[in-house]
Amino acid sequence: MRMAEARRKPSRRGLLRGAAAGAVGAGVVAAGGATGPAWAASGNGATPDDGRVQVAVLLYDGFTALDAVGPFEVLCRVPGVRVTMVGRAGKGPVLTDTGELSLVAERAMRDVHRADVLLVPGGGNRGVLAMMGDTEVHDWIRRIHRRSTWTTSVCTGSLILGATGLLRGLPATTYWASRPFLKDAGATYTPGRFVETGKIITAAGVSAGIDMGLHLASRLSDEKVARAMQLAVEYDPDPPYDTGSPEKADAATRELALKLLDDAAT
Amino acid sequence: MRMAEARRKPSRRGLLRGAAAGAVGAGVVAAGGATGPAWAASGNGATPDDGRVQVAVLLYDGFTALDAVGPFEVLCRVPGVRVTMVGRAGKGPVLTDTGELSLVAERAMRDVHRADVLLVPGGGNRGVLAMMGDTEVHDWIRRIHRRSTWTTSVCTGSLILGATGLLRGLPATTYWASRPFLKDAGATYTPGRFVETGKIITAAGVSAGIDMGLHLASRLSDEKVARAMQLAVEYDPDPPYDTGSPEKADAATRELALKLLDDAAT
Repeated sequence: MRMAEARRKPSRRGLLRGAAAGAVGAGVVAAGGATGPAWAASGNGATPDDGRVQVAVLLYDGFTALDAVGPFEVLCRVPGVRVTMVGRAGKGPVLTDTGELSLVAERAMRDVHRADVLLVPGGGNRGVLAMMGDTEVHDWIRRIHRRSTWTTSVCTGSLILGATGLLRGLPATTYWASRPFLKDAGATYTPGRFVETGKIITAAGVSAGIDMGLHLASRLSDEKVARAMQLAVEYDPDPPYDTGSPEKADAATRELALKLLDDAAT
Repeated sequence: MRMAEARRKPSRRGLLRGAAAGAVGAGVVAAGGATGPAWAASGNGATPDDGRVQVAVLLYDGFTALDAVGPFEVLCRVPGVRVTMVGRAGKGPVLTDTGELSLVAERAMRDVHRADVLLVPGGGNRGVLAMMGDTEVHDWIRRIHRRSTWTTSVCTGSLILGATGLLRGLPATTYWASRPFLKDAGATYTPGRFVETGKIITAAGVSAGIDMGLHLASRLSDEKVARAMQLAVEYDPDPPYDTGSPEKADAATRELALKLLDDAAT
């Protein structure tokens, strides 16, 4: 593959991001070979259709965009991985929690019978409560989970996993303001950007999906690929403030955050 | 508004994220009043249609999802702000750079004549090169920029801004592997997660849009709101690795990152 590329005439196509790649030329090590996906050997991942590890992200009315897109961006370039947006109500646009953005679901939940990785994003109160009471969704999640390699959530997505009974007796995390509700699912709140227990990984709120995505990338491939993906999305965070967790923010900031969420909710 | 809410009977709706808000009860300070948007007083932001500060995110075939969704997630809950996805080719789904995800553009570029904030996301080589050669897009960007309060980019979006001539003689940043190309735009590469100069803000690669989004939130509202939004998206990053910049990653990681980007490109 690298050989074939070397035979191509130079074009502008590879310029913008290819400057450094061009400089290393044919000396580059092919990731597909050296860091080949583990599932190919173990045979526990691939689905029949295209031989890739299938990551299914469940989209439902009122989900939070970044919960889905953070892990997506990190995972979609991992060799041998295919990320698919799966719509609760069917294929097509699914509206996020503020009602201002839609992501397109490529497949309908009812048509997806298997995934190697399931990812359930969080959402606003309305959307998450609907999913917590949706027995068709619970059946689907349990069915996918039975044969999954990893079953994961971001933010309040863990409360949806919890509603299916999958978190009973397990350590887990969720959105900071929702921690008390893990108890209802029989789970024990455990601090961390993500919590892995068996084949279940729950991430903390919204942006924590990026951190979990990098961890998942290493699980689905290896650390080299995960480190490269961190650089590929230039994830060298340096927020102008330091109020990203309830422990670091004061009471007024916590109150205001909840009010902004509430006011923007549809 | 808070009063009206207090009169409501308790329902499950406010439960998940509202636990802490419930605890503070009527003592909460209304953000809309205490931290009222600056543009209402200065009158330089609002568009006639709904009185809100209009943020236009330009979506084009081959853009990078997280470049758009990172700032979106931070800005869409800032009081008085409305984020709209604007499609280069029209309304409807716009495919991202890996061809596995579409975001829906709510409005067509040709129908948008004004925005208070313009945000140009980066993308894969194919998409960005197309935009760098698209004179209709350049005319539109220059027209919006003339009356904008802020003109911004994420990742290689700065190369699109650069192609319009807007960065000539200015400090700017871009995706790490594209830094040499800022020179073609007459701009000077300047380190930082984002670089502000006059009313132009350029962000570094992909995830840097979240950091810039928080900064923009403070500019469009105030620091209290920006800090609250950092907590609202629980942006307390703790990646499992520390290879998020080319200075922190070794040569093999840089090569692999570029190869993964190249292999996943459509």
